[in-house]
Amino acid sequence: MPQKVHRVVFQPDGRTLNVPHGQTLLEAAQAAGIHLEAPCGGKGTCSGCRVIIPRDAPPPSEACRRELAGEEIRRQMRLACQVRVERELRVVIPEETRLGDQKILTEGIERKVALAPNVRKVAVHLPPPSVSDQRADGERLLDALAEKGLTDLTIDVKTARDLPARLRSLEFHPAVVVIGDEAVHLDPPGAADACYGMAFDIGTTTLAGYLTDLTTGKVAAVASRTNPQAAYGDDVIARIEYCGREKSGARQLQALVVDAMNEMVAEACRRADIKPSVVYEVTMVGNTTMNHLLLRLPVQQIARAPFVAASASAHAAAARDIGLKIHPLGRVYTAPLIASFVGADTVGVILATGMHESNRLRLALDIGTNGEIVLGTRERLLACSTAAGPAFEGARIRYGMRAATGAIDRVDLQGDKLALHTIDDAPAVGLCGTGLIDAVAAMVEGGVLGASGRMRSASDVAADRPALARRLVGANGERAFLLADKKETDSGHPILLTQKDVREVQLAKGAVAAGVEMMLEEFGAKIGDVEEVLLAGAFGNFIRPDRALAIGLLPGVAVGKVKFVGNAAGAGARMLLVNRHLRQAADDVARGVEHIELSQRPDFQARFAEAMLFPAGKA
Amino acid sequence: MPQKVHRVVFQPDGRTLNVPHGQTLLEAAQAAGIHLEAPCGGKGTCSGCRVIIPRDAPPPSEACRRELAGEEIRRQMRLACQVRVERELRVVIPEETRLGDQKILTEGIERKVALAPNVRKVAVHLPPPSVSDQRADGERLLDALAEKGLTDLTIDVKTARDLPARLRSLEFHPAVVVIGDEAVHLDPPGAADACYGMAFDIGTTTLAGYLTDLTTGKVAAVASRTNPQAAYGDDVIARIEYCGREKSGARQLQALVVDAMNEMVAEACRRADIKPSVVYEVTMVGNTTMNHLLLRLPVQQIARAPFVAASASAHAAAARDIGLKIHPLGRVYTAPLIASFVGADTVGVILATGMHESNRLRLALDIGTNGEIVLGTRERLLACSTAAGPAFEGARIRYGMRAATGAIDRVDLQGDKLALHTIDDAPAVGLCGTGLIDAVAAMVEGGVLGASGRMRSASDVAADRPALARRLVGANGERAFLLADKKETDSGHPILLTQKDVREVQLAKGAVAAGVEMMLEEFGAKIGDVEEVLLAGAFGNFIRPDRALAIGLLPGVAVGKVKFVGNAAGAGARMLLVNRHLRQAADDVARGVEHIELSQRPDFQARFAEAMLFPAGKA
Repeated sequence: MPQKVHRVVFQPDGRTLNVPHGQTLLEAAQAAGIHLEAPCGGKGTCSGCRVIIPRDAPPPSEACRRELAGEEIRRQMRLACQVRVERELRVVIPEETRLGDQKILTEGIERKVALAPNVRKVAVHLPPPSVSDQRADGERLLDALAEKGLTDLTIDVKTARDLPARLRSLEFHPAVVVIGDEAVHLDPPGAADACYGMAFDIGTTTLAGYLTDLTTGKVAAVASRTNPQAAYGDDVIARIEYCGREKSGARQLQALVVDAMNEMVAEACRRADIKPSVVYEVTMVGNTTMNHLLLRLPVQQIARAPFVAASASAHAAAARDIGLKIHPLGRVYTAPLIASFVGADTVGVILATGMHESNRLRLALDIGTNGEIVLGTRERLLACSTAAGPAFEGARIRYGMRAATGAIDRVDLQGDKLALHTIDDAPAVGLCGTGLIDAVAAMVEGGVLGASGRMRSASDVAADRPALARRLVGANGERAFLLADKKETDSGHPILLTQKDVREVQLAKGAVAAGVEMMLEEFGAKIGDVEEVLLAGAFGNFIRPDRALAIGLLPGVAVGKVKFVGNAAGAGARMLLVNRHLRQAADDVARGVEHIELSQRPDFQARFAEAMLFPAGKA
Repeated sequence: MPQKVHRVVFQPDGRTLNVPHGQTLLEAAQAAGIHLEAPCGGKGTCSGCRVIIPRDAPPPSEACRRELAGEEIRRQMRLACQVRVERELRVVIPEETRLGDQKILTEGIERKVALAPNVRKVAVHLPPPSVSDQRADGERLLDALAEKGLTDLTIDVKTARDLPARLRSLEFHPAVVVIGDEAVHLDPPGAADACYGMAFDIGTTTLAGYLTDLTTGKVAAVASRTNPQAAYGDDVIARIEYCGREKSGARQLQALVVDAMNEMVAEACRRADIKPSVVYEVTMVGNTTMNHLLLRLPVQQIARAPFVAASASAHAAAARDIGLKIHPLGRVYTAPLIASFVGADTVGVILATGMHESNRLRLALDIGTNGEIVLGTRERLLACSTAAGPAFEGARIRYGMRAATGAIDRVDLQGDKLALHTIDDAPAVGLCGTGLIDAVAAMVEGGVLGASGRMRSASDVAADRPALARRLVGANGERAFLLADKKETDSGHPILLTQKDVREVQLAKGAVAAGVEMMLEEFGAKIGDVEEVLLAGAFGNFIRPDRALAIGLLPGVAVGKVKFVGNAAGAGARMLLVNRHLRQAADDVARGVEHIELSQRPDFQARFAEAMLFPAGKA
């Protein structure tokens, strides 16, 4: 009798397996080469193999109830070793599970990072003072920490003020919070394990936060938000202009992003079942404007020639000074910047991908509202930014939206027909970045768009592709392409891609492609010399390389060389949280990378115009 | 014809010269081996040889008017090279003159200190930003400072916030104030030379402050005050008790000393003709209680067994946090402590005398309200404190007073007669510490006091010393010795030394002498092995060694071995201000010195009782 098997889909990468009936999810994942941390060997005691089963999750086993927080169980989290496959399943491997001990994983890259956080919490037993041991309280504490290997620490006078009372109330057995080289706070000894930090990637459009257990290096919970500053401008220039126009504009934008970060801290802490007061440090990567707005540094000179930042340094500030609601004595570390339009997010990408330590010629693209491009080897790294605009993040596109439920995220031309896929298989609501690229690629492939990007008339297309020609409609006096009609949507309106939308895509992909060409030229290399193309960012992570090549977003690179590295900027922020020594490396990267100012290149405009064209369509 | 000469007395050490008519004061001083800085060679251009001529100062020369501030001229300051001796003169060499470039002088000790202050002010020219040089303002500034040799600096985010506007208003030519490793403030380039610090010795009874030009290392002005906390207790225990009794006592005592320090800053700045806003750092030595009160550290546990301090570390705090009115971004450095009753003042004495670097066995006594005793060599240093009480500072003595105008500072027994000397030759007002020692020594010598310290009756003394016997009077039911009768005083009352006063002196000298003996025993040395006895402190500075030996304050040491080192604690504070590298040495000293707790020694009480006795008198 043949063994019964069930189909199991692992998200986010969609890998599909046929799993023998009764096997555990952990065994199935391991058999398929999907890495889940399970140091306990599947006994249900290490909680390393946490997965989410969004629909019809089996009841939690005893081990699940013991190892997981109530909040986690409610959001259908289970231990993979405790779940036996007895029917078809969709399994989501959350980011915290994908991140191993002392490793920072992004989709395609795994970097070993020694656990050496800037924040440590150490339980110590002090001998109580006596007439034969009259050391001061501060020195008694520092001596005890030195015995644990934490040497050369200091105690700030503010901490010393509470020290005598605090030490005595804890009966000389405190859990000491050490931040950097300073013993800053004393907790009860039972709280010694509660030591967290949160790494933030503050993007122009999207915020991502990774609550991280600093005793293990593992991500405990992830939170994300749309950047609420977006209401005051799609891109950084618009926000800087807003700050110039409105007297308290900068203060207002700072408060908005800090409020969102505080919500994210609270949300992640709720999920991980800890209090925000055991979060002691925040690390942050972000572009220069996001960095300056958060730190309350002036931004006007960023947007005005010759475009200089106030400070490109890494900064360490009091969380309180910034307004962040973590431990009252907590700190904020902001990673250093490369230039006014190449920020700490790019430093994060470089750290996470290890481009600064590699001998291979690699090209990294982080396509957000700005496109940052890094090219080079450990010998020489170039970076530039190019104004991709927010099209790929759903803005300025008539039916554009973020990659959320109901977003068309995939469009395939099958003969004359369009096959659409929406996120969560929900009725179509709009079009996210990947769907936009796919749709445009399909239109190029189907001969609807010419090289110039002009949409052809229905009658021109009708001869070859009658089904596609029927999708060419007018909308508000411009041509448009019907992706989904009323019946396919929930909203009762059709989803169109307009001529203007296509122009936005052309501007975006032209900016990126021209940037890549200029960088190659500056480096003295050809695209064929590039050994690996790394696509970073929430958007880059879901792009289909062949589609990106079809529209010319990636100029002439072999599909096999493209690798997805996920939110590498965020991974960089996590690395800086988990290992303080990397902060020196971040400084070296930020000062060592050569910044290329594209707008200063006399031939950039011509390249850009050229790069806006599409590769010749099939028609 | 023999050349006419004039008598010139140089204060404070009283050296007297016969100076040929018409010679300059500088030439006279140099001929007598009195060191005055005069790098200009006497041309009146370096202002190094500043002296004060308290009475009948000659009119200021043109050079004096040019080199000295109006305030200085009003207080009779002149350049010694500009004053020709044409009559008898009394000349005071102010402390700022006695301190040479890169040397810290105390009365008897001169220590070379490299000029390497923690605060530096450097004028830099930055290339303005351009499209071909888009470095951030912060990095532009740090690069320019690095070119001047100030590498590895950082800019705090608070400073960076003002940086763009400030750099542009100064047209990219700022004078940068660097404190520690941080560029903290930008001044106009013209202000580059105005860079000061103030070193404080905060004693239980006396405050001394040394305003120091950090571009030269020279003291620019000195200010002193009685510690206003004295109203709340003579000694540290009384003040700690006050803080325990009164809810806001500690806050009140902190405010008192800070107010006094602010007055001293203002006074010294007025004298030096600078603004307090160009004072960027304060260094402070003081005993543990003074240190803790100033820093708002809790003091209760200092006075309660087992007598531990909150923190013995050096601390760096914001001047603003402490309440000090110097530059708003200025800092305070407090030197580290050795133990609860051996404070940073003792660390200062060790640094200033170099005991931690010497191979010779030396003994240092800093006799203030507490007596601190240090004994040893670079191999091993012991320190203890002994409760001398405030007798030598004039407190608890019926007619005691500080060493000010009208204080009897010298008493000599000439046959049967007493020769008194008062400060400034004014009518007698009271008796200061040195006068007290002299008077008691005279009474021992004259047979008025027996070994036990009991004052003999007039009839017992009358046979041998009738004139002295007449001075033995009754006062409020106790015996007393008449030092000056009504006619010799301004106040209309006589000045007496009572039996109780003698007991106070016995307690004080007994505590010191017993401490010295215990230390020698612990070290395994005899008093004869000690190569040098260093007397520190405002009081020690004026003591006459033979008198101190006569009363047994210094047990059995040869007079020739005694050296005065002045306010060595204050000299230590100046060294720490002028050379930041010494702060590490201070930490090493504070942690390396062995603290001897006298009260824990079973035989201390017996030694103390023994040491209270006087050496047998002549009678």
